[in-house]
Amino acid sequence: MPYNLLKGKKGIIFGALDDKSIAWRTALKCHEEGAQLVLSNAPVALRMGEINKLAEAVNAPVIGADVTNMDDLKNLFEESMKHFGGGIDFILHSIGMSLNVRKGKTYTSLDYGFGQKTMDISAMSLHRILRTAWDLDAINEGGSVVALTYIAAQRVFPDYSEMADAKALLESVTRSFGYHYGLRKKVRVNSVSQSPTRTTAGSGVKGFDGFITYAEKMSPLGNASGDECGDYLVTLFSDLTKMVTMQNLFHDGGFSSTGVTEAVINQMEK
Amino acid sequence: MPYNLLKGKKGIIFGALDDKSIAWRTALKCHEEGAQLVLSNAPVALRMGEINKLAEAVNAPVIGADVTNMDDLKNLFEESMKHFGGGIDFILHSIGMSLNVRKGKTYTSLDYGFGQKTMDISAMSLHRILRTAWDLDAINEGGSVVALTYIAAQRVFPDYSEMADAKALLESVTRSFGYHYGLRKKVRVNSVSQSPTRTTAGSGVKGFDGFITYAEKMSPLGNASGDECGDYLVTLFSDLTKMVTMQNLFHDGGFSSTGVTEAVINQMEK
Amino acid sequence: MPYNLLKGKKGIIFGALDDKSIAWRTALKCHEEGAQLVLSNAPVALRMGEINKLAEAVNAPVIGADVTNMDDLKNLFEESMKHFGGGIDFILHSIGMSLNVRKGKTYTSLDYGFGQKTMDISAMSLHRILRTAWDLDAINEGGSVVALTYIAAQRVFPDYSEMADAKALLESVTRSFGYHYGLRKKVRVNSVSQSPTRTTAGSGVKGFDGFITYAEKMSPLGNASGDECGDYLVTLFSDLTKMVTMQNLFHDGGFSSTGVTEAVINQMEK
Amino acid sequence: MPYNLLKGKKGIIFGALDDKSIAWRTALKCHEEGAQLVLSNAPVALRMGEINKLAEAVNAPVIGADVTNMDDLKNLFEESMKHFGGGIDFILHSIGMSLNVRKGKTYTSLDYGFGQKTMDISAMSLHRILRTAWDLDAINEGGSVVALTYIAAQRVFPDYSEMADAKALLESVTRSFGYHYGLRKKVRVNSVSQSPTRTTAGSGVKGFDGFITYAEKMSPLGNASGDECGDYLVTLFSDLTKMVTMQNLFHDGGFSSTGVTEAVINQMEK
Repeated sequence: MPYNLLKGKKGIIFGALDDKSIAWRTALKCHEEGAQLVLSNAPVALRMGEINKLAEAVNAPVIGADVTNMDDLKNLFEESMKHFGGGIDFILHSIGMSLNVRKGKTYTSLDYGFGQKTMDISAMSLHRILRTAWDLDAINEGGSVVALTYIAAQRVFPDYSEMADAKALLESVTRSFGYHYGLRKKVRVNSVSQSPTRTTAGSGVKGFDGFITYAEKMSPLGNASGDECGDYLVTLFSDLTKMVTMQNLFHDGGFSSTGVTEAVINQMEK
Repeated sequence: MPYNLLKGKKGIIFGALDDKSIAWRTALKCHEEGAQLVLSNAPVALRMGEINKLAEAVNAPVIGADVTNMDDLKNLFEESMKHFGGGIDFILHSIGMSLNVRKGKTYTSLDYGFGQKTMDISAMSLHRILRTAWDLDAINEGGSVVALTYIAAQRVFPDYSEMADAKALLESVTRSFGYHYGLRKKVRVNSVSQSPTRTTAGSGVKGFDGFITYAEKMSPLGNASGDECGDYLVTLFSDLTKMVTMQNLFHDGGFSSTGVTEAVINQMEK
Repeated sequence: MPYNLLKGKKGIIFGALDDKSIAWRTALKCHEEGAQLVLSNAPVALRMGEINKLAEAVNAPVIGADVTNMDDLKNLFEESMKHFGGGIDFILHSIGMSLNVRKGKTYTSLDYGFGQKTMDISAMSLHRILRTAWDLDAINEGGSVVALTYIAAQRVFPDYSEMADAKALLESVTRSFGYHYGLRKKVRVNSVSQSPTRTTAGSGVKGFDGFITYAEKMSPLGNASGDECGDYLVTLFSDLTKMVTMQNLFHDGGFSSTGVTEAVINQMEK
Repeated sequence: MPYNLLKGKKGIIFGALDDKSIAWRTALKCHEEGAQLVLSNAPVALRMGEINKLAEAVNAPVIGADVTNMDDLKNLFEESMKHFGGGIDFILHSIGMSLNVRKGKTYTSLDYGFGQKTMDISAMSLHRILRTAWDLDAINEGGSVVALTYIAAQRVFPDYSEMADAKALLESVTRSFGYHYGLRKKVRVNSVSQSPTRTTAGSGVKGFDGFITYAEKMSPLGNASGDECGDYLVTLFSDLTKMVTMQNLFHDGGFSSTGVTEAVINQMEK
């Protein structure tokens, strides 16, 4: 490293909150690999101010956008294209938020108004981003879009609650929009299903510690870190993966294909 | 037939519109198999009046409910339990509606307000129904809930548009709520992924004819009919399938496991 | 019960060893539901003599067959059709054996000669059975064939060793032959992926106790029993499931769709 | 390009037959990216002599090995390690052969002796290769092994016949051995499920032309080429994908997630 895998490429990274964020780690990796970046996050997250450190490190402007607001997104894409002097090659969607989880509403007692916000912010935001790009013809031929997701979209992890449903919706949007953008401009759209990661967002989930230990014991390679996720994303943004699209790709140390491990069985026998 | 597979069982059937509806066919089958029923549909659908014929045929009350309205659902469950003199054994969710599809908005130009309604009516309605039942403790131990879905939740069928995303969300709710209701009362929650069926709702979709022909040619057993779906649902509501839960079950003549058929290849070579 | 779901139907059940066998439990259920049966097992298993008790209980002849021997299978089908006075409506394949597991050869030190026998007995036997039936045109229009399998075909359970590979092969044969038999005579071919079950065969596997406890804790409905599996198989052999084919159907209390449970997390925190 | 992604890495490439082979294209890509290589193929394939052109181009020795022969494999690994002066970083398994397909035996009339060879050559060979490496401790910490496969392992493509079953078995070996090698040395083992490709081997399959056209029309990005597959494999052999293991990765232009396309529907309506 670095390999210059992203030399000359321009990307927008959504969702870097602090230096534990996967989006943050990924921005650093993309920068190392030669990409030019624009960073975006919700206005409320920007107010924390942490992102400015990242902006400096990767020499990128920060352009705030509420991903549920089409005007904000239009402004973001227009400003980004102006900054880059051209179209966009890759986008990372690392956005998720559940008011129900935050406020301790269990899955069987969801507030449906909160729930609608969860879906809009965590899943339909990908549609809104892609659709804004589509309308502006903002993504270059063969570009690459990745959304981060979690295996709760396939199997129940009870504490993950409605975020599981949001991720299932997100993955479906990935496929659906991937079809159209693939036909039109050979743009790839995939999701990466990452190991549980000790981000500031993740840590808020009840039972997170027991759970991350379980995932570690259930993964032959252990849990994948945010830095490792950044490495993987670099390959998906590069020109070496131009025919991979509409896939959900597990980056999880083997967790998804492991039924049980000896480490877990031993713990069961205690 | 009949086998009395559902003798003594009480069920609520959502979504019978006219005699082509899968819910309609299923209601007839459940009645033949000895079940007592309550029929429900949206007030606007009830106004068409067709459902009264079914109500007469299966000797069931019709109780209207807007599935996005918690008061309506509470009333429906309370009235149903009063009618049955006890709890509910099974529920069929056969509900789906996309304003975007109806109004000709393509996937890349969705109206997001319409989209929110699509998700609420077609997917979150299952959560609302289950949660109403949960709060009232309305489903008997070992009860069975099935939602109808479509393979567009896994693979893109472009004309199915945002309904694909809604079905993916619906299937996730099936798993998520199935976990909780299984633990609490051994209630099973599954989805059945049915062949495309010439219902009044289905026929509205653009390109439906070419598509249903393709599905027929791609299924070693041909497309499954609404009556056949009813037969299958009877088994899932019966006591013979008490350990099947959180599954998406394909009832599709083999379509989902077929990559290509000679019939399709021959057509390609024309 | 009984519902006469299999009244008038004729079936061959492979693999009843003793009264803990799933095939044994299923034979009893099929008999209760009105089916006429032929029982078959390997000559070496027949010598144990237990199967005669079952034969008496379900009023069925026992016809031995080495499932790797085409002459034996031809004889079995010819004798069965003679006994039934006609074709066969359903078949249960509950056959699996790994010499490597028995002799304590780990997955990384397989004996390849043993391995070939494992594949032949546990997986290709389904092909041989179906092909014998195909050549004799022995299965009636709309008949149903089910093979028992295990989720190790999708996810690694280390002690299950090469049987995982055998089950993956078996499930593929299910799909491949299901395609052809579906087109020709609307015969359905499916696999049922059952919870770990305390059969005489299963108990031989190293670490089986810790493992079965884990599966129980990871299944919202608990592990499915052999009797419950028999119930489910009755529905798949019946006329109510005529459009289900080429599927792998989980009968596992929800295990396959559960990522983790609170019971397992609690154990992890010990 | 090149990025030096494989600088300093040593790999064995199995299965380069001629310049249309995916293994051939991949060898060129790996060489460009800085890898040192050993080429291997069956003695009968080597006799064709084509591989020597590749050997010259990538400056690699050719070491023949019958992949069903443990002595040959042991020799191959020992000679490779001697040549490299150390352990191996990556392996490509691009090996498949069906005598039944070659000799025109349909799936319902397989020769079981041929079938056993198909499984041994096309699937168990991966186990034999990994096991030889395991016994010699030949793969370096964090190494990467990829086997090429095809979506027929999940869905039936009738002309692909028993190769579908072989690929299902191969993918299972990938997971099973991946578990053990992951725990021991963080070695990753994955399969890549590639678009149908006009190789010399592929072209032999009956109906290949109609089929490849269908796949092209069913893939939003079109079919992936051998060169593009080589690019993708480079990423999987690199240090950027160290936490991806036990996965089946579709490299298919979106085919696997597409239910139907307008191009196919239009053809259906002809």
